[in-house]
Amino acid sequence: MDIATIIGLILGAALVLMAILLGGSIGAYVDMPSMMIVIGGASAATMAAYPLARYLQLPSVIMKTIFTKATNPVELVKQLVELAEIARRDGILALENAVETIEDEFLIRGIQMAVDGSDPEVIESIMETELENLMERHTAGKGLLDAYGRYAPAFGMIGTLIGLVAMLSNMDDPSAIGAGMAAALLTTLYGAMLANMMFLPLADKLALRSDEEVLIKTIIIQGVMSIQAGDNPRNVQSKLMTFVPPNQRIVEDDREAA
Amino acid sequence: MDIATIIGLILGAALVLMAILLGGSIGAYVDMPSMMIVIGGASAATMAAYPLARYLQLPSVIMKTIFTKATNPVELVKQLVELAEIARRDGILALENAVETIEDEFLIRGIQMAVDGSDPEVIESIMETELENLMERHTAGKGLLDAYGRYAPAFGMIGTLIGLVAMLSNMDDPSAIGAGMAAALLTTLYGAMLANMMFLPLADKLALRSDEEVLIKTIIIQGVMSIQAGDNPRNVQSKLMTFVPPNQRIVEDDREAA
Amino acid sequence: MDIATIIGLILGAALVLMAILLGGSIGAYVDMPSMMIVIGGASAATMAAYPLARYLQLPSVIMKTIFTKATNPVELVKQLVELAEIARRDGILALENAVETIEDEFLIRGIQMAVDGSDPEVIESIMETELENLMERHTAGKGLLDAYGRYAPAFGMIGTLIGLVAMLSNMDDPSAIGAGMAAALLTTLYGAMLANMMFLPLADKLALRSDEEVLIKTIIIQGVMSIQAGDNPRNVQSKLMTFVPPNQRIVEDDREAA
Amino acid sequence: MDIATIIGLILGAALVLMAILLGGSIGAYVDMPSMMIVIGGASAATMAAYPLARYLQLPSVIMKTIFTKATNPVELVKQLVELAEIARRDGILALENAVETIEDEFLIRGIQMAVDGSDPEVIESIMETELENLMERHTAGKGLLDAYGRYAPAFGMIGTLIGLVAMLSNMDDPSAIGAGMAAALLTTLYGAMLANMMFLPLADKLALRSDEEVLIKTIIIQGVMSIQAGDNPRNVQSKLMTFVPPNQRIVEDDREAA
Amino acid sequence: MDIATIIGLILGAALVLMAILLGGSIGAYVDMPSMMIVIGGASAATMAAYPLARYLQLPSVIMKTIFTKATNPVELVKQLVELAEIARRDGILALENAVETIEDEFLIRGIQMAVDGSDPEVIESIMETELENLMERHTAGKGLLDAYGRYAPAFGMIGTLIGLVAMLSNMDDPSAIGAGMAAALLTTLYGAMLANMMFLPLADKLALRSDEEVLIKTIIIQGVMSIQAGDNPRNVQSKLMTFVPPNQRIVEDDREAA
Repeated sequence: MDIATIIGLILGAALVLMAILLGGSIGAYVDMPSMMIVIGGASAATMAAYPLARYLQLPSVIMKTIFTKATNPVELVKQLVELAEIARRDGILALENAVETIEDEFLIRGIQMAVDGSDPEVIESIMETELENLMERHTAGKGLLDAYGRYAPAFGMIGTLIGLVAMLSNMDDPSAIGAGMAAALLTTLYGAMLANMMFLPLADKLALRSDEEVLIKTIIIQGVMSIQAGDNPRNVQSKLMTFVPPNQRIVEDDREAA
Repeated sequence: MDIATIIGLILGAALVLMAILLGGSIGAYVDMPSMMIVIGGASAATMAAYPLARYLQLPSVIMKTIFTKATNPVELVKQLVELAEIARRDGILALENAVETIEDEFLIRGIQMAVDGSDPEVIESIMETELENLMERHTAGKGLLDAYGRYAPAFGMIGTLIGLVAMLSNMDDPSAIGAGMAAALLTTLYGAMLANMMFLPLADKLALRSDEEVLIKTIIIQGVMSIQAGDNPRNVQSKLMTFVPPNQRIVEDDREAA
Repeated sequence: MDIATIIGLILGAALVLMAILLGGSIGAYVDMPSMMIVIGGASAATMAAYPLARYLQLPSVIMKTIFTKATNPVELVKQLVELAEIARRDGILALENAVETIEDEFLIRGIQMAVDGSDPEVIESIMETELENLMERHTAGKGLLDAYGRYAPAFGMIGTLIGLVAMLSNMDDPSAIGAGMAAALLTTLYGAMLANMMFLPLADKLALRSDEEVLIKTIIIQGVMSIQAGDNPRNVQSKLMTFVPPNQRIVEDDREAA
Repeated sequence: MDIATIIGLILGAALVLMAILLGGSIGAYVDMPSMMIVIGGASAATMAAYPLARYLQLPSVIMKTIFTKATNPVELVKQLVELAEIARRDGILALENAVETIEDEFLIRGIQMAVDGSDPEVIESIMETELENLMERHTAGKGLLDAYGRYAPAFGMIGTLIGLVAMLSNMDDPSAIGAGMAAALLTTLYGAMLANMMFLPLADKLALRSDEEVLIKTIIIQGVMSIQAGDNPRNVQSKLMTFVPPNQRIVEDDREAA
Repeated sequence: MDIATIIGLILGAALVLMAILLGGSIGAYVDMPSMMIVIGGASAATMAAYPLARYLQLPSVIMKTIFTKATNPVELVKQLVELAEIARRDGILALENAVETIEDEFLIRGIQMAVDGSDPEVIESIMETELENLMERHTAGKGLLDAYGRYAPAFGMIGTLIGLVAMLSNMDDPSAIGAGMAAALLTTLYGAMLANMMFLPLADKLALRSDEEVLIKTIIIQGVMSIQAGDNPRNVQSKLMTFVPPNQRIVEDDREAA
């Protein structure tokens, strides 16, 4: 879980609430139909743009964005070096037992193929294909959040235009103009809030998570190939450490950093 | 057919209708000349941008976007593995009969070439070229929807400017200002609605459909190459399954998911 | 000539004229100095951005965009297959006479090099270079239209700002405010019209024309290489037909389609 | 020197001046502090974005954009063919003397390396690296103009917001509202003028100049490689002419065209 | 340290301050809650978009952008040529001692691997991987500044909408309208200032710093490979000098230029 995302989402909401309360009562800012047109409209447009099964993944995409625990690349390199030591000392078949201590599904599958004696090119090609397809799925998940981030402000504008036309067609009572205009602006406000306080930051976050996961899987592929080739564990370490930011190469207990 | 797209399009329209009815009568929002300038103008610009034959494909592009049934990649992998088993057991010529049970035109052509004993490089090159040209045609279809999505708001703005100039040149009757401005804003509203409730979501959808079709055709190309090479059906399965999202690899009856 | 482009340009103008006439008299919408600042300003900026010789190509780029006749890829494939048959039956030198029946300059040059016995790599490299340079020239032509499409709205805004400042600095006569504002908005209207009813659609069209021409030239390169290699005409046909949209492969008399 | 750029810059200024004079007196459009905030602010932001030495190159980048004389590719091909003839007739060492008649530094260096008997791969690699670094420097120069083109309108908006807040905080005298608003809009006008009448067209121009220079240097590299390989001058000509637009291949005295 | 960045940041602030003071008192422009919504909101959105550890690097990214001293490429080439001379004269092991005089960590590691007799392909692959990962980290740092540059104006707009709704809902006192609107616009002003006077220029700067560092590291990789291959120092010099802008190749004491 990443505490920053939760703090960011709550902090944004708190600041907006503060700004509203300072300006007056919260009542002027809550309007059910305005919320429906923005949230419902953005949902309708996104739904029209995505197959149903993928649209229904939206909650799990959001949850994953917020709660996924990042793998520490330094820990991973250590683990791969240990596996390289076992393979070099006791033969590659000895990794059969070591597999049980591994958590990462992708690494297990790579080691399993190495133990089974698959051809190095075959292992690399299968793992690369898996990585490419993972990247495409991440792009699709990010697309879902981006779509909300684009359509929410658009429906905010549509709502405001509907409100302005209503107000302008009916200006008999000048004292109602201000209130009508305020109500019309609410949907633009909702659209801007939904996009900038939720969907766009989460889409950015998912892209970063994806980059991290690609880095982790790239390290694993390089590691498995080195282990199968019987490389010297020290060489494995220096090769894999190039993927880790220099400052983390020394301070190895800073686990949240990426 | 994809139910989400239809729900999305109807839901969007229903929400806007609700917002209009809550704000007043629907009469203030319906204006024939305003519709003509936005729909007609966007059509004129798109027509100017595309060759006639391609512009006339617009209805079929929209229909295809909404109603095309996606091929289930898991089912396809199963089918390819079965074909690999037949080829391995009874020889590649035995696929001649199996072809009759296949629906996908692209797969039939690939198998046919394998049965005919064409060179693997030739088969791969012909199938890859076909895939590339398919991608270009999809891009062109998406371009048509994108063009409407860009020109509809532009003609909305042109209509509003025309209305504003008319209103401002003739301000003798102050009570008519509101109504004139409301009428002027209608084209902007129409443009935003056309773009965000129809053309942009459909363009997004077509891009996703295209990605899915590319994935399906990539699996077919890989499968046909493996079948011709006489690969072990188990290896074919594990190789092709890397193209399928991990969660679908187990639950194989979730057919809508992509 | 492509009828759709002409219809599109005229239809757009007719719709705007209709909208203007419905809103009042056309007099309020015609202002010579406003036209000069938008058209002249966009021309000045584009001229500043391009070498003189290239800027002067603008009329020919526009003419070419509207009037160039597209080559039918199906007809071209037929012609290449016929040439392959002649080369296979009577030897490649027999193409010398066939050249006279060809219209396409690029194909003539390719066949000529094949007849002259040039090295296949040399032919391919020269034809590829020519194709690449053609694409770059198309990009440059599209850039000219895009520049007008960007600078016309920008000078529309500059004109409106100049008009607003004039109006606001001189508000002694409140009854003149409306007229002043209307006049100020005219340049924004002109800019939006020039961009969306002319330059941007034509730029889109040129990009499509370029894609078509690249497809045609790619088919020619592939065809010439196959002819020189002495490929079987049937194989040449099935290879080149992959570049043609599937629906045109059967119905071969739909000449406008692309 | 390119006359079009100078005409474009002057024409744009003249048109804006005309529009201002038609609308009233020029006095309302000249405001020193407004100019300072826009020009100074855009300069400050660009300065913050660039190392000092590179920022100080701005005047020379602008001068170069306006005054650099383009090399005529047709003349260059002729020259390279002549060099190829000398090399073929009198041996490559005979180029030693020919070098003195060459103006282009890049061509001189290439010929010099060929005369010195350097390895073809080495020559190509050195010349390619030089070309790549040249492209990066051009991109950097264009970046400087683009930065001004982005920051000038941004500071125009900042100036207008400052002016609006000043005007709105002090509305005791309604007759001053118009003048205050006019003054506030001036910075937006200046920003739009600076960007669209100067920096953006010059950035476009620099990109074109860069493309031309890359084309010229690509022709030189190809030419030097052919000369060193002792290619037939006729082949050199037909190979290099593919880089020249077809219409210039015949009419060789149109020197400004590119 | 780069003086231009500091001058640019201060100059921008000074100009805005001047514009404010000319327009009236500074009091109307300082509003604590408005600052909180813009700065706090942009921070909240950026925090939501980034893992905590990376978000906390923001101050060090800003410091690095402003204060990092650029390596002079000409000095670096000189140093590499000297190392090449030592290696050629005294053998590659003689570089062991020379390492102590080198400051650049990356160069030390490269020389160390060359001295240790590692395989050239291994050295190149390790150094290239390090360079790629460095570029990815720079992109991530720039992303942090870009995120602030995008979210600050967005929260400026959110603040303005909140203020407008408050003002419009409560228009009983017409004399308060101006002040309410002025206050509402303040957040838009703050957002535009934060983005254009700080985060966007710094993001541009970081991208340039990154390009410079990539150039430096590319020179180092090429240099180390040449040194290990035992290339002639003169060839090393002419090869590496192609990475340096032509004008710096002669005037070698202009240390700030890049």
